[in-house]
Amino acid sequence: MPNSGNFFEKQRSASIQNKSRLCVGLDPDPNRLPKGVDLKDFLFSIVDATSDLVASYKPNAAFFEREGVAGYRLLQELIEIIPEHIPVILDAKRGDIGHTAAAYATAVFDVMKADAVTVNPYLGTDSLRPFLDHTEKGVFILCKTSNASAGEFQDLLVGDEKIPLYLRVAELANNWNEHSNVGLVVGATYPEEAARIRATAPDLEFLIPGVGAQAGDLAAVVDASIDRNGQGFVISSSRGILYAWETGEAGDPGYAPGGWQDAAREAANQARIEILNVVDSRGKTWGDA
Amino acid sequence: MPNSGNFFEKQRSASIQNKSRLCVGLDPDPNRLPKGVDLKDFLFSIVDATSDLVASYKPNAAFFEREGVAGYRLLQELIEIIPEHIPVILDAKRGDIGHTAAAYATAVFDVMKADAVTVNPYLGTDSLRPFLDHTEKGVFILCKTSNASAGEFQDLLVGDEKIPLYLRVAELANNWNEHSNVGLVVGATYPEEAARIRATAPDLEFLIPGVGAQAGDLAAVVDASIDRNGQGFVISSSRGILYAWETGEAGDPGYAPGGWQDAAREAANQARIEILNVVDSRGKTWGDA
Repeated sequence: MPNSGNFFEKQRSASIQNKSRLCVGLDPDPNRLPKGVDLKDFLFSIVDATSDLVASYKPNAAFFEREGVAGYRLLQELIEIIPEHIPVILDAKRGDIGHTAAAYATAVFDVMKADAVTVNPYLGTDSLRPFLDHTEKGVFILCKTSNASAGEFQDLLVGDEKIPLYLRVAELANNWNEHSNVGLVVGATYPEEAARIRATAPDLEFLIPGVGAQAGDLAAVVDASIDRNGQGFVISSSRGILYAWETGEAGDPGYAPGGWQDAAREAANQARIEILNVVDSRGKTWGDA
Repeated sequence: MPNSGNFFEKQRSASIQNKSRLCVGLDPDPNRLPKGVDLKDFLFSIVDATSDLVASYKPNAAFFEREGVAGYRLLQELIEIIPEHIPVILDAKRGDIGHTAAAYATAVFDVMKADAVTVNPYLGTDSLRPFLDHTEKGVFILCKTSNASAGEFQDLLVGDEKIPLYLRVAELANNWNEHSNVGLVVGATYPEEAARIRATAPDLEFLIPGVGAQAGDLAAVVDASIDRNGQGFVISSSRGILYAWETGEAGDPGYAPGGWQDAAREAANQARIEILNVVDSRGKTWGDA
């Protein structure tokens, strides 16, 4: 069975339980906090307000490292308070030679206790091996990223077959998946590329950022990414949920205290339903597998 | 003038003052500490024992993250106690989309107060821009790494010119160097590739790991990397210096207390002299520029 590694099983269970293919990204910005709320309260409350609506959470290491030692501690505490049945993907994009990659794998999986991690493939197999050897964890390999200059290297045509580099990464990711613990990062901003990656890697789960603030087309990328079982992806959204309170009623005089949590919950639920609607409209339901 | 950015100026000054092209890598392993010495004492003493022998220090983030919050704090303290005139390269191999890369740049340069950082080019220009915009800092881009599987992607022939991917990275690195703050990571284990990179990027400083534990050939990689001014590189060594005490006299009954610091100092000095000897034997001296 594809993706039967523990992380992917766990994400699938949460996904079925919460009827959700939404991964909420936790990218805290201390300059965008509701008045009187600190970073820790903000994040803990966001988790509290959304944990029955998500398939997974994805804290991004950069935003915690930016806060120094206190931020690093907060990241650890945050992962601890996320309910046990919701898996945590640490978005850290690590990648180093084997000796060092082993230290990163220990840091991410054993110290931070994340269930999965994002990694960069540029250094090749031996740099990924220490992560892949944690067979109960998930390893999402950057394939085609969501940013504007993603193509500078990722689209270069390589080798005799003249396929883009990102497809070569997808090919090797298939080989790396012997323990069913490999996924791919595929940006929502590139649905055509997503379709080619899906054709090359029919069994690999996609982690799809780039909807919302980055303006990817949800329907197009779902069409491109959905696998033959109607599964195979989660859509990640960060800013659109965390900072939903900044728009709409938040500025109104009558905006109730606690309204920012409601706004996050509402935005998460809306994203959850939008994704499911696209899936449903393609004749796929959660029961299919 | 090539590489006149503040980081490179600072490294050059230290290099001239200490007559050294050696960068000591600080990759602490808590299982390889002299008896009765903790991680902090060990690292602080290594710096104390070697700071008049080096061009720069290169702590590797992975080995500090592996120690959790305490390790993260230690990394910050370590950077603080390194003498002001010796620059610090944080070996972190970061790389993410622009919004997140900006958070990493703040974390590395403003919070950790490193003078330079290693970054991964896979996501292209906009992922590097936030680092490059810190014009007073150094940005070392992974080009050809020292590990065995480096070539899986880095050696793929790309584009119409059919040049290896790592050379395409070097070409773009030239463009990114408008503030003279860009360097390249080039593994000592691939001297032929280093020569091609030097030909493509005549003005970029190389950070060269892979001598010592990884068995790169020092003379070959110096020949390949030295620029037309007899400059253009530092050689990084970590384990060969930090753990010099484990070999030789360290196991002898007569081994003096404090001997592990002497062993590190001796190993660093030996590495420093070996590198200078190769440079001298090529008819280059420090005065050339």
